[in-house]
Amino acid sequence: MASELPKKYKAAVYDKPGSISTKIEELDMPEPGPGEVLVNLTHSGVCHSDLGIMTNSWKMLPYPTQPGQVGGHEGVGKIVKMGPSTDHSPVKIGDRVGIKWMAGICEACEACRAGADACCSAGKLSGYYTPGTFQQYALAPANYVTPIPDGLDSADAAPMLCAGLTVYSALRKANAESGQWIVISGAGGGLGHLACQFSARGMAHRVIGIDHSSKKDIVLESGAEHFISVDGSDNVVETVKKLTGGLGAHAVIVCTANNRAYDQSVEMLRFRGRVVCVGVPEGEPVPIQSALAAAMVTKEIQIVGSAVGNRRQAIETLEFAARGIVKVHFRTEKMDKLTEVFEEMHRGELKGRVVLDMQD
Amino acid sequence: MASELPKKYKAAVYDKPGSISTKIEELDMPEPGPGEVLVNLTHSGVCHSDLGIMTNSWKMLPYPTQPGQVGGHEGVGKIVKMGPSTDHSPVKIGDRVGIKWMAGICEACEACRAGADACCSAGKLSGYYTPGTFQQYALAPANYVTPIPDGLDSADAAPMLCAGLTVYSALRKANAESGQWIVISGAGGGLGHLACQFSARGMAHRVIGIDHSSKKDIVLESGAEHFISVDGSDNVVETVKKLTGGLGAHAVIVCTANNRAYDQSVEMLRFRGRVVCVGVPEGEPVPIQSALAAAMVTKEIQIVGSAVGNRRQAIETLEFAARGIVKVHFRTEKMDKLTEVFEEMHRGELKGRVVLDMQD
Amino acid sequence: MASELPKKYKAAVYDKPGSISTKIEELDMPEPGPGEVLVNLTHSGVCHSDLGIMTNSWKMLPYPTQPGQVGGHEGVGKIVKMGPSTDHSPVKIGDRVGIKWMAGICEACEACRAGADACCSAGKLSGYYTPGTFQQYALAPANYVTPIPDGLDSADAAPMLCAGLTVYSALRKANAESGQWIVISGAGGGLGHLACQFSARGMAHRVIGIDHSSKKDIVLESGAEHFISVDGSDNVVETVKKLTGGLGAHAVIVCTANNRAYDQSVEMLRFRGRVVCVGVPEGEPVPIQSALAAAMVTKEIQIVGSAVGNRRQAIETLEFAARGIVKVHFRTEKMDKLTEVFEEMHRGELKGRVVLDMQD
Amino acid sequence: MASELPKKYKAAVYDKPGSISTKIEELDMPEPGPGEVLVNLTHSGVCHSDLGIMTNSWKMLPYPTQPGQVGGHEGVGKIVKMGPSTDHSPVKIGDRVGIKWMAGICEACEACRAGADACCSAGKLSGYYTPGTFQQYALAPANYVTPIPDGLDSADAAPMLCAGLTVYSALRKANAESGQWIVISGAGGGLGHLACQFSARGMAHRVIGIDHSSKKDIVLESGAEHFISVDGSDNVVETVKKLTGGLGAHAVIVCTANNRAYDQSVEMLRFRGRVVCVGVPEGEPVPIQSALAAAMVTKEIQIVGSAVGNRRQAIETLEFAARGIVKVHFRTEKMDKLTEVFEEMHRGELKGRVVLDMQD
Repeated sequence: MASELPKKYKAAVYDKPGSISTKIEELDMPEPGPGEVLVNLTHSGVCHSDLGIMTNSWKMLPYPTQPGQVGGHEGVGKIVKMGPSTDHSPVKIGDRVGIKWMAGICEACEACRAGADACCSAGKLSGYYTPGTFQQYALAPANYVTPIPDGLDSADAAPMLCAGLTVYSALRKANAESGQWIVISGAGGGLGHLACQFSARGMAHRVIGIDHSSKKDIVLESGAEHFISVDGSDNVVETVKKLTGGLGAHAVIVCTANNRAYDQSVEMLRFRGRVVCVGVPEGEPVPIQSALAAAMVTKEIQIVGSAVGNRRQAIETLEFAARGIVKVHFRTEKMDKLTEVFEEMHRGELKGRVVLDMQD
Repeated sequence: MASELPKKYKAAVYDKPGSISTKIEELDMPEPGPGEVLVNLTHSGVCHSDLGIMTNSWKMLPYPTQPGQVGGHEGVGKIVKMGPSTDHSPVKIGDRVGIKWMAGICEACEACRAGADACCSAGKLSGYYTPGTFQQYALAPANYVTPIPDGLDSADAAPMLCAGLTVYSALRKANAESGQWIVISGAGGGLGHLACQFSARGMAHRVIGIDHSSKKDIVLESGAEHFISVDGSDNVVETVKKLTGGLGAHAVIVCTANNRAYDQSVEMLRFRGRVVCVGVPEGEPVPIQSALAAAMVTKEIQIVGSAVGNRRQAIETLEFAARGIVKVHFRTEKMDKLTEVFEEMHRGELKGRVVLDMQD
Repeated sequence: MASELPKKYKAAVYDKPGSISTKIEELDMPEPGPGEVLVNLTHSGVCHSDLGIMTNSWKMLPYPTQPGQVGGHEGVGKIVKMGPSTDHSPVKIGDRVGIKWMAGICEACEACRAGADACCSAGKLSGYYTPGTFQQYALAPANYVTPIPDGLDSADAAPMLCAGLTVYSALRKANAESGQWIVISGAGGGLGHLACQFSARGMAHRVIGIDHSSKKDIVLESGAEHFISVDGSDNVVETVKKLTGGLGAHAVIVCTANNRAYDQSVEMLRFRGRVVCVGVPEGEPVPIQSALAAAMVTKEIQIVGSAVGNRRQAIETLEFAARGIVKVHFRTEKMDKLTEVFEEMHRGELKGRVVLDMQD
Repeated sequence: MASELPKKYKAAVYDKPGSISTKIEELDMPEPGPGEVLVNLTHSGVCHSDLGIMTNSWKMLPYPTQPGQVGGHEGVGKIVKMGPSTDHSPVKIGDRVGIKWMAGICEACEACRAGADACCSAGKLSGYYTPGTFQQYALAPANYVTPIPDGLDSADAAPMLCAGLTVYSALRKANAESGQWIVISGAGGGLGHLACQFSARGMAHRVIGIDHSSKKDIVLESGAEHFISVDGSDNVVETVKKLTGGLGAHAVIVCTANNRAYDQSVEMLRFRGRVVCVGVPEGEPVPIQSALAAAMVTKEIQIVGSAVGNRRQAIETLEFAARGIVKVHFRTEKMDKLTEVFEEMHRGELKGRVVLDMQD
């Protein structure tokens, strides 16, 4: 199989980082090193973070993006070549696998030993310095790629590798039991509607979705038992309390960067409830301002930061998707439309997600 | 025994709430109702919260204190009479027991069922509306008083019922394992020096104490392995990281209401570390301001509010004290010196704690 | 309301303990003591344990049952009178409430403080020494009765108070996450079919039911994803492994007293899996024999005993029932048919459960 | 540094597996492959399991040991050469590291992802098929060797890598809080005396040690608060209950293969207590027989198997040793005395442990 590999392949690179611009280039086929696999990527999701990396607007990142960088971190394809020292790898040639934001970890530091992959100090971030998934071929660690379950389309799988994993991991951090009340703040958005599905259908929580009234339908279709509009006449906090028998919710998953959402989330929780702050994707850091410190203490509230999930959770996320429990809204575009997709995203006009089909 | 009870007894009441003033009055001996015991109190700790309640300066409380209120919530004495329906009570006449801030709970609400005593909506707060422990006799629920272990002096036991319990409960919320690094912020204070003792000696943590340089000795005597001065030339955050092998501490217990302490606490934690906010005793609520939200997410930090502990933890707190593992610094005063004690406390001149000896 | 209460009411008593015999008698209306409520019971489930108590065949109980004992521990009815000292009670006159096996606890011992109601040394067992629920009126602690949610029929609620609570509590002890594999051993029985419903529908587990082939339909209707017959040609352990991707299940809930079920349960688990032993209702204690000790150690298996659940779990069990997530199969009988019901149960001919309708 | 390596080095091999016999041989210096390091071992502990492997008497192992096998799994030495692809390794040339029973794991299977190293299906067992640590040089995975902290002698470190780690891991599985009661069964043995030290000094538990009366001194010196003799007139179960306030211990760590110890352990526990079965080192599997099943259910007891700990716990174990909290009793022998050491061990005459000094 390896003998048939072309010498060159197509990649979409950031040719002018700082502005919205990508260019299709021909790159040399790489050779997998020890412990690596070569993946022929057919699909890659396009995430809002990619826009932030390309335009250097994501404040959390330490270095500016360089010209020639290949972006993308939701890639799916087939393994076409195994490097040396991959005997105990859980994957083999022909397997479909995914490459995600945390594309590889050192497997050795304390964070890795604790399953806190996102906190590995030597972790490779796909599409930021490490070549990403907006290309037809990519190298990845044999032990760290995510196997794609049979029966799940590659295009459906792609957005699960970042958006799906992010909300799944956040919901696990809510420490809520089945049957308990979860509020999803920003429930109709890209992360929010997936959070509703995972929470209501995958974890048997009772879900209250909060968002603008225009999002009511998608929130209820995603499994929420109740919808509360932020632009209506209802007092959001009081409504949550009424719906939950007076005490408030067990957890709030904040999928929006709106400050008021953070403040309110403490108020709408019952004693020992938990606010989960989902990965801040871009822009200014979210202040947790609080005249609410007193409430935090008297109600013993917990506020928990959640970065992107680990390898194990990535596998679980895809299992839920393969069982049909969660499904992301997306449309497919060819690779050479990537710049237009980013422009649409920048104008705030993008509905759902876009998955690049990178097959010729 | 009950037959020998006097008709009247002495109590120190807040005669002019809003100002610092107490007055010794003779009160009628009360009769225990169903499920209640009558306790002949010999000692009561004087807590900073009592000053706040007397002077109506504690913003977290909903109602102003009324003239005639008996304050105090760290009372110890002997049971002298049992009310009806106390058959299954864990205590009996002659037992020494304690009355604490949460003097009784409804035993029926969801918070009570969850062991979150401090969150009971019908909980009785000793010394605030409910008659407190600055008196020679008090009623208390037979099921809820805290048994005092043999071998622990009543005077030593008193401050454990609030100060001791508060830090013990907070440390339990740190979720730290033995051998892990705990930073105590405000380590030389009334709560802090007890936190050092519980953490280092009672829980086998490794403790780093932070406070003003004048507190160095008490912090190290209380079991801290290292002391960092806030008024020295050391960068506190960097020093914590260096002492903990570069990663930062596993948890920070914030025993001070200083805002900067909160901000720094996030910075000095390793991934998945936990900030525990100990019961804000008085004054303005503590804002958790944060340009640190990004750090919270990327390091998956948790911020946890801790109210006063529950009945079970009160028993455990006293067991640690009875074993000699923790010991509070205090001096003893007679009941009629209470106003002077509060004035000393208000001037910030009180060293350690004061325990009232209320025996004639 | 209290003024209308009759002087006498009907109860079914065990007139000849040791044999299968009950007799309807007229008893004097009792008066609620401090902290108690008087409940006008309309329905009571009949549990296999009642048969064991009546016939003195349940080896786990310390004392023989006395003539005149009123049995039953799945009672539902309306509160008609409140005793003194019930001000903070979560219930009031007119509320529908349930009385369960653990009819009252001391609220004071270490087990009670830990939420281990079943381990309270002073707990009152309904229908064994304490008067049970085969009667039209019963006393119960105001703080401990289980509120019946609106919209749930009293007859549907009754069997939830023991059978439902038992399996709910056992499933919580499995420590399994949503999406994980649970094997229910004895999946078609009275406890087993409820366990399938709670696990698959209430907790979003993936359920494999094991039982005799005659039970296949009820197991699959109850939410199991797969059924394995114990009397077929399949190797049960190998089939579980194949269905779970080779590793085995995350937990096994053993709802049968069959020894082989216990041995197999260790074999069919993946590493760190958990066997939950559901309340042994009657007969000889179940030996956990094991040539399997080595497997326990190398796979780090856990074996966990589960008694009947606590007050909080009773409330949660009824919430799941009120939401229609679980439903028990039962038929209704009048009180004077109780002896016939026990005889049918003894002959092993009873399908599903029986609920007594005790209204005149 | 690598250039100075000799071509040959000394190893003690099992020349006649099935009998007690070892022979010093000269072996060729190996070359580290990708991800590997070459370690110049100076010390190796000798464990009872080594005897079982050499004599093929350990029933848990699947294959007979082959002639020429190098045994040993408690090795300590310096890294002298790094293989390719070790850039992100946490160790470098010159570092002292340890090689333990689980010498390497696949880092990819579900067990590895869960931190259950001992359950990795592709794990390499040092000294059984994989060359062990009774040799002067050995290869090991750069990411998986255990760094030895400064200030801890290599000879002291060696036995920590198996005996120390085994009991440390078992104690962590006890889920006991500081201040709670732990019973160590077999408290004076090789594992038991370390368990006492870790539990009492490292985790702040209250320890009761049980063993033959001849072991009383070592048990008390190891930190136990109480000693109970199995050959005295005391009823062991009753004594444990009396010492623990009537309820029984919170956990029992069974460090002996004695069946009666297992039976008694359930009886001496309080409600929800936990029996931890420490790695069965050799001989027949330990049956958990139980007329005690009823007690397991009514007291909600947990029985937990504990294999050897993971990489993270190995690091923690050595940190406790470096702090002087635990210390193993051992004597040093030269490599060519290994056969005599095994004979002494076989006769049951070995006091404490033996560490081979393998330096020329």
